Amino acid sequence: MKKISLLGSTGSIGTSTLDIVRRNPESLKVVAMACGRNIDRALEQVKEFRPELVSVTDEADAAKLRARLDGTCEVLFGEAGAVKVAVHPDARTVVSAIVGAAGLQPTYAAILAKKEIALANKETMVVAGEFMNAAARQHGVRILPVDSEHSAIFQCLNGEDSKRVRRLILTASGGPFLNKPKEEFATITVEQALKHPNWSMGAKITIDSATLMNKGLELIEARYLFDIGPEQLAVCVHPQSIIHSMVEFQDSSVMAQLGLPDMRVPIAYALSYPDRIPNDLPSLDLPRLANLTFFEPDEEKFRCLKLAKMAMSEGGTMPAVLNAANEIAVAQFLEKKISFLQIAQVVEETLQGHSRQTPRSLEEIVAVDQWARRRASELAAA
Amino acid sequence: MKKISLLGSTGSIGTSTLDIVRRNPESLKVVAMACGRNIDRALEQVKEFRPELVSVTDEADAAKLRARLDGTCEVLFGEAGAVKVAVHPDARTVVSAIVGAAGLQPTYAAILAKKEIALANKETMVVAGEFMNAAARQHGVRILPVDSEHSAIFQCLNGEDSKRVRRLILTASGGPFLNKPKEEFATITVEQALKHPNWSMGAKITIDSATLMNKGLELIEARYLFDIGPEQLAVCVHPQSIIHSMVEFQDSSVMAQLGLPDMRVPIAYALSYPDRIPNDLPSLDLPRLANLTFFEPDEEKFRCLKLAKMAMSEGGTMPAVLNAANEIAVAQFLEKKISFLQIAQVVEETLQGHSRQTPRSLEEIVAVDQWARRRASELAAA
Repeated sequence: MKKISLLGSTGSIGTSTLDIVRRNPESLKVVAMACGRNIDRALEQVKEFRPELVSVTDEADAAKLRARLDGTCEVLFGEAGAVKVAVHPDARTVVSAIVGAAGLQPTYAAILAKKEIALANKETMVVAGEFMNAAARQHGVRILPVDSEHSAIFQCLNGEDSKRVRRLILTASGGPFLNKPKEEFATITVEQALKHPNWSMGAKITIDSATLMNKGLELIEARYLFDIGPEQLAVCVHPQSIIHSMVEFQDSSVMAQLGLPDMRVPIAYALSYPDRIPNDLPSLDLPRLANLTFFEPDEEKFRCLKLAKMAMSEGGTMPAVLNAANEIAVAQFLEKKISFLQIAQVVEETLQGHSRQTPRSLEEIVAVDQWARRRASELAAA
Repeated sequence: MKKISLLGSTGSIGTSTLDIVRRNPESLKVVAMACGRNIDRALEQVKEFRPELVSVTDEADAAKLRARLDGTCEVLFGEAGAVKVAVHPDARTVVSAIVGAAGLQPTYAAILAKKEIALANKETMVVAGEFMNAAARQHGVRILPVDSEHSAIFQCLNGEDSKRVRRLILTASGGPFLNKPKEEFATITVEQALKHPNWSMGAKITIDSATLMNKGLELIEARYLFDIGPEQLAVCVHPQSIIHSMVEFQDSSVMAQLGLPDMRVPIAYALSYPDRIPNDLPSLDLPRLANLTFFEPDEEKFRCLKLAKMAMSEGGTMPAVLNAANEIAVAQFLEKKISFLQIAQVVEETLQGHSRQTPRSLEEIVAVDQWARRRASELAAA
């Protein structure tokens, strides 16, 4: 029986995680969960999964939830509550699926408490990769990826020595504008950018997929998750998204993980590794899928990818600045305050205004993140 | 330092194996080798690799070779000599690359001597799979595949529990007649059948690729190598031969191994597993390879594949009969004594004339093999 603390229970990864727990009551059990403001959903989840502890964002919501529960589940709130969930003494694994910077502190607390981490929160590695890795090494903690591309790479590595890796190759769908001429990028609308060809996701990540910033952030995540040099990381555009990512080894052999787009597969893998949990998902029917195609990404057209690679190569606080500036720029684009092309422009100018540092604490990282958000907001308003 | 006995040193797999040894003198050493009648090549190999023992097919050749060596290398001949090579006390691994039935006895001797087997000889598993597996289990011997498809599957499994496998999917190029209409199969010439689109191989295996019997034999080999049920084995036609084979796990995740066609990669993997030996082969350039396509095999057009699946499902001595009848039929086709379509016909009628047995010794298997060859020859002459 693997006991789990679930950070971000009401989001997309959280509900998929609970679906896996529901189907495997003999091997998985949720002992604590944290969520945001969706307390109706949280109430249902607590009633079904019977954790010992739940934490929500607001104190008022915590009081409401407590009133509607029978007292068998402790109810907390805020960052301190989420941290309590992360370090729950019964939990062996923490699923880190709170979106954004709010996931950093609880994930860090889980590492300090020597919990195994199933990591869905990108920011942990993008914003604080070196820092989190150092903490994980120090406390003997294993960080297992949940993201589909990183799970693919983890499955391809499957315990092989990272010294034997020639390249990690992340596949990218290429997003809705793969074949759009560069000249037309200036007139891309929010509605056009929100139409992703393969995956149904939130607005922020869908825009990141359209700019390829998502792939850039994944490169940075991979760099730290797999402790691999920036020069060994490549992106390959693969519009069908059937190959989720690949590892090329030093003997020229390439391992690839393929599948239909269903997040329950990588989540379940992270929860069962090195075993696999059987499911009844249909088999991949390659003959029915027609062609698999592959292209080099066009970094002139998708400048966010180029900027992400630059930030990855520089390391230190640069990825944190990239991520924060991008969050602001995408939010401004979604509010129709800046154009599609200005997203990369805001990110680039924010990066240019920052001098690389090596952060020694989570507080320093948060300070850099906040500076970058302010700077990007100014640039977007200019 | 891994010490190797090499059975079949002058053939294609043998020379590729020696090329790997040549490039890795600090980790690989050949202590004994066996070959056939190419004693000029054998002489060169002995002078370069300095084994302690070499064995050739004929007594007269052994005498000639002995006269041309300086006495530091023992020279033997015949099956007894090949067996001595297989059980050489210094060898930890035996590369079994003698072609055809002649490889059976030395491979079996190596298993009894508790040597790790790097298996290129298909007949070991096709003709005597259950028998060899029982011996390997009894003596705690690991059999590592060298064949490109089976190495791909082995790399995809990479130590995962075979109970978690849903299907093993062998890819097939489809051969030169993939898109030829069935009506035209009756007029296929030897010259047409010898033109393989992707691999340069011997005549027998090239014809087997054209009939898809090669893939059928590989299915049988996979069944025993990976101890997997016949219903879990599938063939997928993939004309580009970039994906060398795949494993679908019970969580619907599919692992694939990709690469350029170079036998040194799977041979080196078998010799270095679980490590990999770096090489300077070029990286797989997926964007330059254009499309990867996949089709269901047409078992009405390629009846040899259907016959192989039937023999695999029945098990026992049926695969041995299939293999022997096919060898005779292909030889007769290459001599233009029977037509392309008659290959499957001879195999089918030979199978129909045999009652499945469970062989208890290598002698019983050899007797069935010889019966099938006689029967197939009669059928081909009729």
